[in-house]
Amino acid sequence: MPDQTETRVRRERLRASLREERANGLVVIARPNVRYLSGFTGDHGALLVTHDRELLFTDPRYETQAAEESDCDVKIAKGPLIKELSAWIKRLRLKSVGFEHSRISFDDYTHLKEFTGGIRLTALKDVVEALRIVKSAAEIATIKASVRLNSAALEQALRHFKLPMTEMDLAAEIEYRMRRLGADGPAFETIVASGKRSALPHARPADLPIQHDELLLVDMGANVAGYASDMTRTHAVGKLGPKRRRMYRAVLEGQLAAVDTVRPGAPCASVDRAARDVLRAFGMEQLFIHSTGHGVGLEIHERPRVGRKEKTKLETGMVVTIEPGVYEEGFGGVRIEDTVLVTAGGCEVLTTTRKELVVL
Amino acid sequence: MPDQTETRVRRERLRASLREERANGLVVIARPNVRYLSGFTGDHGALLVTHDRELLFTDPRYETQAAEESDCDVKIAKGPLIKELSAWIKRLRLKSVGFEHSRISFDDYTHLKEFTGGIRLTALKDVVEALRIVKSAAEIATIKASVRLNSAALEQALRHFKLPMTEMDLAAEIEYRMRRLGADGPAFETIVASGKRSALPHARPADLPIQHDELLLVDMGANVAGYASDMTRTHAVGKLGPKRRRMYRAVLEGQLAAVDTVRPGAPCASVDRAARDVLRAFGMEQLFIHSTGHGVGLEIHERPRVGRKEKTKLETGMVVTIEPGVYEEGFGGVRIEDTVLVTAGGCEVLTTTRKELVVL
Repeated sequence: MPDQTETRVRRERLRASLREERANGLVVIARPNVRYLSGFTGDHGALLVTHDRELLFTDPRYETQAAEESDCDVKIAKGPLIKELSAWIKRLRLKSVGFEHSRISFDDYTHLKEFTGGIRLTALKDVVEALRIVKSAAEIATIKASVRLNSAALEQALRHFKLPMTEMDLAAEIEYRMRRLGADGPAFETIVASGKRSALPHARPADLPIQHDELLLVDMGANVAGYASDMTRTHAVGKLGPKRRRMYRAVLEGQLAAVDTVRPGAPCASVDRAARDVLRAFGMEQLFIHSTGHGVGLEIHERPRVGRKEKTKLETGMVVTIEPGVYEEGFGGVRIEDTVLVTAGGCEVLTTTRKELVVL
Repeated sequence: MPDQTETRVRRERLRASLREERANGLVVIARPNVRYLSGFTGDHGALLVTHDRELLFTDPRYETQAAEESDCDVKIAKGPLIKELSAWIKRLRLKSVGFEHSRISFDDYTHLKEFTGGIRLTALKDVVEALRIVKSAAEIATIKASVRLNSAALEQALRHFKLPMTEMDLAAEIEYRMRRLGADGPAFETIVASGKRSALPHARPADLPIQHDELLLVDMGANVAGYASDMTRTHAVGKLGPKRRRMYRAVLEGQLAAVDTVRPGAPCASVDRAARDVLRAFGMEQLFIHSTGHGVGLEIHERPRVGRKEKTKLETGMVVTIEPGVYEEGFGGVRIEDTVLVTAGGCEVLTTTRKELVVL
């Protein structure tokens, strides 16, 4: 939970953005944005931030929790939150209110328009996300805790690794260790993919035995006090042939090259290019079918995207993943991923788990 | 994964709805709806169903998986799915297309409008959800498997119960057991709330010791092959005083009374009323601050809502939770919840875990 100074500072920064947009307030629906601005962690909330007020709407199930967690003025709604919130927009005589362009549903937007009748509604693109892109010292400390816990969970789980074991068994072990170490849970569905299934970048763990003399890809993240970590390691189970070892080397070199370019001022596209150039030199560019990385924070995927076309320049305090991978259908795949903090001097790789090929 | 006859039947039923709405097709964005109609389980997909085609859009990461899982025509998009999908709407010369009113974001809607310029876009309310409300035999079998697994996980986890133990430890144990029993994971964040924290209906497990001579509320659900289960049990840890035992009795009687009214033709509101009437007789109506239940299926909360104002009548094949609860701030709470199938003869309580007060 952020302390209340932190949420207050965030709302002041939001208000500065709202002044630029000439909006009297913002309707916040997206859960991580509500949490970021109010401290409230419940499932069902909506926030109205004006230049001098902050109203948090939730339902009776969350009355106690909202009062405990948030420094906003809590309003308990019996019906749809958007209806209650709209009534407050009218009561406060706001003339112009922004809403979250990519987060509000068509439905909620339609209701907002209907219930506030006649005021100016402005679609604001990523206005809260733009604040969230650079992390505060407190947020960085939480992300570091999440990253460390994630690495510890993998290490502990691998101590229990022995064949025969299914992908699902290993995923269960990993998530159990996360939990026991104090995580609220995994930040996303843990990926454990053995053999040719490692060529599916987003494989769900199957009730299938982990294969000997094959690749084993594990992509995992913990949720610690709301903040995600994200790490992928690809292991050798037994002996790997030369082709698989070469795939590993290519991805590792690409990953290191990309990390090497992470510094304030570097455009995301150039970080992506660094990984892609290495893979091209290995003749594997066509096998790298996703972006090099993405921001991490309250959500597992946030801004900036570390991709081919992303013009955003990195800034001190941003946290991104660097995770090139190559995938050959019917054969196997390799991905190596760290969570990386942009620092004044360049970057700090937060993930401590070693990246040399580990043989299980 | 549904077999392909099942997805085909679902799309034919959808087409009948579309004909009533005089729409040439439907744009499907919501993940469970995409899964329901196409079989595709990936994170990133969009579906266009017309009267004679079914196009599934996803990105290159899911190319293999989509082809394996779905009987739709898979289109791999390099950019935004909605852009590629819109191009197909134009290519197929559709004049009128529906979209999911409560699921599409304002953003995607705006893009859809822009990219398809000039065609008629119709907001359709819950058109896929309305199909999903009655479950097929195959879906019921999967939900039963999910419910059974969930009960087995609780039973196994409680075998490891001993004080001192934190709420988080017990949650970790529960989710580990689910996984080991073959679940894809929990269907929602497991709730473990001890002592006065049991009065928070949606408490997140805390790193706090489970209290002796107090209530212990556990609300848990498994995700098995995409289908959720949902169960709450409130336990006595040690000895409970008369007030807590009376709360338990009131909720149990309310729950049994509500289950007793579940049958085809019964309005949801009357099921809710049955629970509420019992709690009123105990003088606890004001402490029951949520609805009696909700539908369960591909999502943990689906139609119908078993609430005070819900006019939907139950039908054979619907699956709902029955979960009254009472909560007294600073003191404690009790909730008892089963997953229940509506059958021709009334209902079948799928949850097998006993409901008498268990003393741990």
